[in-house]
Amino acid sequence: MFDFKYFTPTKVIFGKDTENRTAELIKEFGGTKVLVHYGSGSVVRSGLLKRVTDNLDAAGIAYVTLGGAVPNPHLSLVYEGIELCKKENVDFLLAVGGGSAIDSAKAIGYGVANGGDVWDFYDYKRKATGCLPLGVILTIAATGSEMSDSSVITKEEGLVKRGYSSDFGRPKFAIMNPDLTKTLPDYQTACGCTDIMMHTMERYFTNGGNMEITDALAEGLLRTVKKNAVILRDDPQNYDARAEVMWAGSLAHNGLTGCGSCGGDWMTHKLEHELGGLYDVAHGAGLAAIWGSWARYVYKNCLPRFKKFALNVMEVENTGSDEEIALRGIEAMEDFYRSIHMPTNLRELGVNATDDDLKVMAHKCAVGVGGEMGSARVLNEQDMYNIFKASM
Amino acid sequence: MFDFKYFTPTKVIFGKDTENRTAELIKEFGGTKVLVHYGSGSVVRSGLLKRVTDNLDAAGIAYVTLGGAVPNPHLSLVYEGIELCKKENVDFLLAVGGGSAIDSAKAIGYGVANGGDVWDFYDYKRKATGCLPLGVILTIAATGSEMSDSSVITKEEGLVKRGYSSDFGRPKFAIMNPDLTKTLPDYQTACGCTDIMMHTMERYFTNGGNMEITDALAEGLLRTVKKNAVILRDDPQNYDARAEVMWAGSLAHNGLTGCGSCGGDWMTHKLEHELGGLYDVAHGAGLAAIWGSWARYVYKNCLPRFKKFALNVMEVENTGSDEEIALRGIEAMEDFYRSIHMPTNLRELGVNATDDDLKVMAHKCAVGVGGEMGSARVLNEQDMYNIFKASM
Repeated sequence: MFDFKYFTPTKVIFGKDTENRTAELIKEFGGTKVLVHYGSGSVVRSGLLKRVTDNLDAAGIAYVTLGGAVPNPHLSLVYEGIELCKKENVDFLLAVGGGSAIDSAKAIGYGVANGGDVWDFYDYKRKATGCLPLGVILTIAATGSEMSDSSVITKEEGLVKRGYSSDFGRPKFAIMNPDLTKTLPDYQTACGCTDIMMHTMERYFTNGGNMEITDALAEGLLRTVKKNAVILRDDPQNYDARAEVMWAGSLAHNGLTGCGSCGGDWMTHKLEHELGGLYDVAHGAGLAAIWGSWARYVYKNCLPRFKKFALNVMEVENTGSDEEIALRGIEAMEDFYRSIHMPTNLRELGVNATDDDLKVMAHKCAVGVGGEMGSARVLNEQDMYNIFKASM
Repeated sequence: MFDFKYFTPTKVIFGKDTENRTAELIKEFGGTKVLVHYGSGSVVRSGLLKRVTDNLDAAGIAYVTLGGAVPNPHLSLVYEGIELCKKENVDFLLAVGGGSAIDSAKAIGYGVANGGDVWDFYDYKRKATGCLPLGVILTIAATGSEMSDSSVITKEEGLVKRGYSSDFGRPKFAIMNPDLTKTLPDYQTACGCTDIMMHTMERYFTNGGNMEITDALAEGLLRTVKKNAVILRDDPQNYDARAEVMWAGSLAHNGLTGCGSCGGDWMTHKLEHELGGLYDVAHGAGLAAIWGSWARYVYKNCLPRFKKFALNVMEVENTGSDEEIALRGIEAMEDFYRSIHMPTNLRELGVNATDDDLKVMAHKCAVGVGGEMGSARVLNEQDMYNIFKASM
């Protein structure tokens, strides 16, 4: 067991019509002039943005709006947001959307509060000493950015995708209304469930001696998402299932499922990042496509935990050798992915990579992690290539 | 499923020697003049208090000290603390101890920040609009006050014991070093484990349609404490088991295990409060002595959840009728209490109440809850008497 810090200051307001409390919450946290930041037009088309700005208008809170946040949000839009905040004397950020809008807003907040070039933080050159206060109205259950300390931004020049984590970036409040996720395409819902489960699985598959209570919470969370992802496949309008997945998404990445662990493995995420860099794939689907190959490659080095996962999460039969049980768990996880129409290899993902492509991705991944990385098993460049190859 | 708020801003610093970070954390939260508040002499005898004040001295942080917080902390000491803070211009409170010191410090914080008579808050006459910032060094895993919004104070005149809950009272930070709990008497350790489990069980036994994820987290927490309470019975110096129980204590009462529920049942706590008012009993032991009689009295009204508890927490055999499984779960819980030397009725608790005593307690309890209360089953005064009677 390792020492740990747990810090989740975000005030979560969860339930129906909670977006009507936006102005009240902004006032509670001292906001007087707001930048409302959102992504694609879906929050416009659904009428959500208008409901939110009407709510601000009724409360007499001034605001400016900035749309356009895309998945792997762009640095250029962040710069634009920073300038807009300075020009308009914005003192509070409101992200309306999913991880893209939230991450982009966090970066804007760092830029305004710290001055200088905000890319410095994502380029490991400086550490932030503050962030503009940020509230969230969540519309996609996936990244967990609504309670997490992390954000990912892409610099268009050279397509450099980088993450920065700081407690200053944790949102002040998160409004979570499961109804708002009902308009998501089925594929995006399944991708979100995959991302949520992977955030906890990355923390779970370690050789770092996790706490029993953390394992129990993680396993409970994974079983819940697994069950409700299938319910949503058949009944996307199911409020309760939307709620289970939405709340799981926050808990999966706010730190709770990692307390006492060594920090996690995270190699499935790192491998997927390279995929996402070269091909236009949804993050969750990319994770699903890689995970099975990663798991088969590493499980013998982390057998007790793969066995535990098989029994307590996938609930496979407890017969045979530990290896057999572990493999049965991996197969059951892949069956689950297929059942919610997620890919379990690169071809199913729609990626036809050449051997040279795989080598390039493995090389970039190895450079990105400083040579080698992983806890379930430490992987070097050759290992990364082998996993990509196995996932074809 | 009900709408909910989740707000746990307390920064938890968990692990060995973490008390050495006290000054650093006080500075982070802006404290310059500290009231160090503690309970009995145990933190003096163990040397902890000196280590903490040495840490403040080394960092140049000024402080005054106030000891004497007792279980069901007294209002008179709270008044004393408020006057001391005003006289010394204290701007930060540091509670060193368990629930008594923390609850007492919360009340002092309300008194300083709001003016007027602090008892008003506990007497439902006013709501606090702030609280002096508070940090905690936890030495007993039990009440969960280190992350919770609640505090309980006793007014000596008439022995009135009242609770007040406000987000303003949630500690800014909580230092949790499992080593600090190793000096607890075995009986207190077992009482703490009982209290921790009961905080989650009160939220679990409802007819309010809990969330699946909340149930899964609650069941995982309960299994963990059940297992580690037995480990600590045999090996009180076991660091890992101390850590599991300590972290469970915070999560059991910070709101996590109640998200989406109707708020909980809480009648075991209410009945125990009356016991604690008339007899000198430890809170955890009192809860254990009452619970079985309460459970047998109400389980038919809440059968699905008693069955779920039996299977998922007590892990009893899944055979027979739902009633048989539920009863098997209640018996297994009582067996567990006995195994850690907790009482399962009033006689084992050392309480020899007359029938009139039981009637008085039932009457006071009914008045205290406004006539009737409960979610697993709504109880009136006659029900309360019947449960007391069954627990003799």
